[in-house]
Amino acid sequence: MNKNIIVFGGDGFCGWPTSLGLSNVGYDITIVDNLVRRKTDIELECESLTPIQPIHTRIEAWKELTGKNIRFEYIDVSEHYHRVLSLIQELKPVALVHFAEQRAAPYSMKSPHHKRYTVNNNLNTTHNILCAVVESGLDIHVVHLGTMGVYGYGTAGMKIPEGYLKVKVDVDGEEKEVEILYPANPGSIYHMTKTQDALFFYYYNKNDKVRVTDLHQGIVWGTNTFETTMDERLINRFDYDGDYGTVLNRFLMQASTGHPMTVHGTGKQTRAFIHIKDTVNCIKLAIKNPPKSGDRVKIFNQMTEAHTLIDLAKKIEKMTGAEIRYYKNPRNEDVENALRVSNENFLKLGLDPITLDEGLMSEVIDISDKYKDRCDFSKVIATSLWKEGMEVDRKGSKKPIK
Amino acid sequence: MNKNIIVFGGDGFCGWPTSLGLSNVGYDITIVDNLVRRKTDIELECESLTPIQPIHTRIEAWKELTGKNIRFEYIDVSEHYHRVLSLIQELKPVALVHFAEQRAAPYSMKSPHHKRYTVNNNLNTTHNILCAVVESGLDIHVVHLGTMGVYGYGTAGMKIPEGYLKVKVDVDGEEKEVEILYPANPGSIYHMTKTQDALFFYYYNKNDKVRVTDLHQGIVWGTNTFETTMDERLINRFDYDGDYGTVLNRFLMQASTGHPMTVHGTGKQTRAFIHIKDTVNCIKLAIKNPPKSGDRVKIFNQMTEAHTLIDLAKKIEKMTGAEIRYYKNPRNEDVENALRVSNENFLKLGLDPITLDEGLMSEVIDISDKYKDRCDFSKVIATSLWKEGMEVDRKGSKKPIK
Repeated sequence: MNKNIIVFGGDGFCGWPTSLGLSNVGYDITIVDNLVRRKTDIELECESLTPIQPIHTRIEAWKELTGKNIRFEYIDVSEHYHRVLSLIQELKPVALVHFAEQRAAPYSMKSPHHKRYTVNNNLNTTHNILCAVVESGLDIHVVHLGTMGVYGYGTAGMKIPEGYLKVKVDVDGEEKEVEILYPANPGSIYHMTKTQDALFFYYYNKNDKVRVTDLHQGIVWGTNTFETTMDERLINRFDYDGDYGTVLNRFLMQASTGHPMTVHGTGKQTRAFIHIKDTVNCIKLAIKNPPKSGDRVKIFNQMTEAHTLIDLAKKIEKMTGAEIRYYKNPRNEDVENALRVSNENFLKLGLDPITLDEGLMSEVIDISDKYKDRCDFSKVIATSLWKEGMEVDRKGSKKPIK
Repeated sequence: MNKNIIVFGGDGFCGWPTSLGLSNVGYDITIVDNLVRRKTDIELECESLTPIQPIHTRIEAWKELTGKNIRFEYIDVSEHYHRVLSLIQELKPVALVHFAEQRAAPYSMKSPHHKRYTVNNNLNTTHNILCAVVESGLDIHVVHLGTMGVYGYGTAGMKIPEGYLKVKVDVDGEEKEVEILYPANPGSIYHMTKTQDALFFYYYNKNDKVRVTDLHQGIVWGTNTFETTMDERLINRFDYDGDYGTVLNRFLMQASTGHPMTVHGTGKQTRAFIHIKDTVNCIKLAIKNPPKSGDRVKIFNQMTEAHTLIDLAKKIEKMTGAEIRYYKNPRNEDVENALRVSNENFLKLGLDPITLDEGLMSEVIDISDKYKDRCDFSKVIATSLWKEGMEVDRKGSKKPIK
């Protein structure tokens, strides 16, 4: 049996460590990527804090260190359907991992252009992958990276289940229990596309029996995995800017460089988190435990803990003495929310979660410290607005504030 | 106050009579259309049974008869965002009516190309309209033609409500009632795009307060309205082919031309119906009764009665003596379903429904009879398959079978 896996978006922040992680346990990896995340660096005039290498340098370094081959195909999946189809027909992969979407909520809100780009890219990419699987006639497991944001945060105060919700409905005066897809409540254009993805999966699973695992991931923190630390040429990207930087990594980087931690709004928003190493572990587990033929879409919550933003900031304040500074919230969201999330599916499959208390926060601080000369502090403040007329602070400066 | 309305897709089967109906009651209509439905006739090698005139001939005839102007803009809304935005900025319309989607379920299932076209066209078109409304900064009511098919037919046996469903959920052992968007259960790629449209509306209404009315329409029957019968140059299109022809019109046309009525499957599938005149009446009512600022998306079921396909065929058999012939069902759907639909919102607004019993079926028979020489009988059988490997009958012939 062949061990081919195609990783769509395999050059990105989650895709690259996943590709190496899967290669290292014996899968034959083909990365499909249009390198758009690197091109967006040019648009945003901001680079990864870590000095990431060109994809072919990365792949050659991996070959040199481990003897393992990774193939790379430069394809825009949203546009070049037939190249995707040919590749699937040629490789007959056991699984496809799909990371190939525009993944930043603030970027998706920047302007009408960015809204339209996110919708067109994300929806056509997901659809092209599913359509090509069906056209190939092969029985391929599709693993998709979704987001916890499809739920909306803290709906109705209940513990968020894994994708499906049992509800009671009134049928002519009689109560009937049915299980439905958890009602979607997206908070940005980006999140909206992921709720629309869920309908692609639902339909293709129902009509064509495509086997799908949809991973509703929390906010990723951390930088590197075992594989990406083997050689500096394999280093993973690290985003600290207001669009692509995720909150915990931004706090840690700000703390290490003497910039105050930028809390937007009250900081009482609760979010779900996962370490990048666990992202890779979860994808491995999902691939090893595919849905059976005829199963409905398998939905896992890919997160390990939930915290309010202010609690995170205070934890880091205690560790490092960094100052907290409050900024206006550019997001159109509740001031405060509770969040309880079920993640039993991965725990049952043997995931041993990495939590904030395990000392890995210092890894991010070390990285930030090592590469701080590469930082452009003017990019730290979030400026993408959720609505015209909302206010935003623009206090970023080229130098650390303190 | 200006009385501008833009009708996206205003050259099509529903769009044309709606444009005339709105023009006739005093709105200033601008039709935006890329004329794709006429181009699809070329692809499918099949034309409207009725001799529809070019859009400019139509508009000139309307002007000649009524003195009223209709403006036409040739725009592909899925592609040319900035032309849409400019038009909205120029006209500052009170309402936009959005018919500009690929509307045939069988066509959407024809091939991977047709699936991809339907997804790309329908989703980008809806999104571009909403995005342009927000970018314009104007408070414009968007009226969208959706479909009853978003519900899936007969879910859980309950009477289908208008868009929203009250459910009880368990929150830590306590029962809580919440109202959610009715869980989507699309039966084709086309229907899937309409369920994804619903998420566009939900999000843009929540984040940007766009006022939206989404009309979940049943299967349209009938051909003409008061306005389209004023002059033969205004005649509406009539599709009888296996992709675009809707079931009741197909039966009536088959009965009138001596072709057996083509029932796919058992005929025990129940569907919701509405006459084309009521489509226009409902759109007028929706425009006259817009949601208020801050209201959630208003959802109406735009249908007037429900019937099984076999009951319809038997009704026509009785009227005309036409034979019923059973064909394999190319759709991946339940053999049989019940369907009860709530349509109180339109009844409350004063809709006086036109039903099958009102003698309007003979209008379709008269039209079919008048133009039967234009019919290509080889196009009557449905051949688009829902899944690879499904069987289909291809017994169509160039001449009536009997």
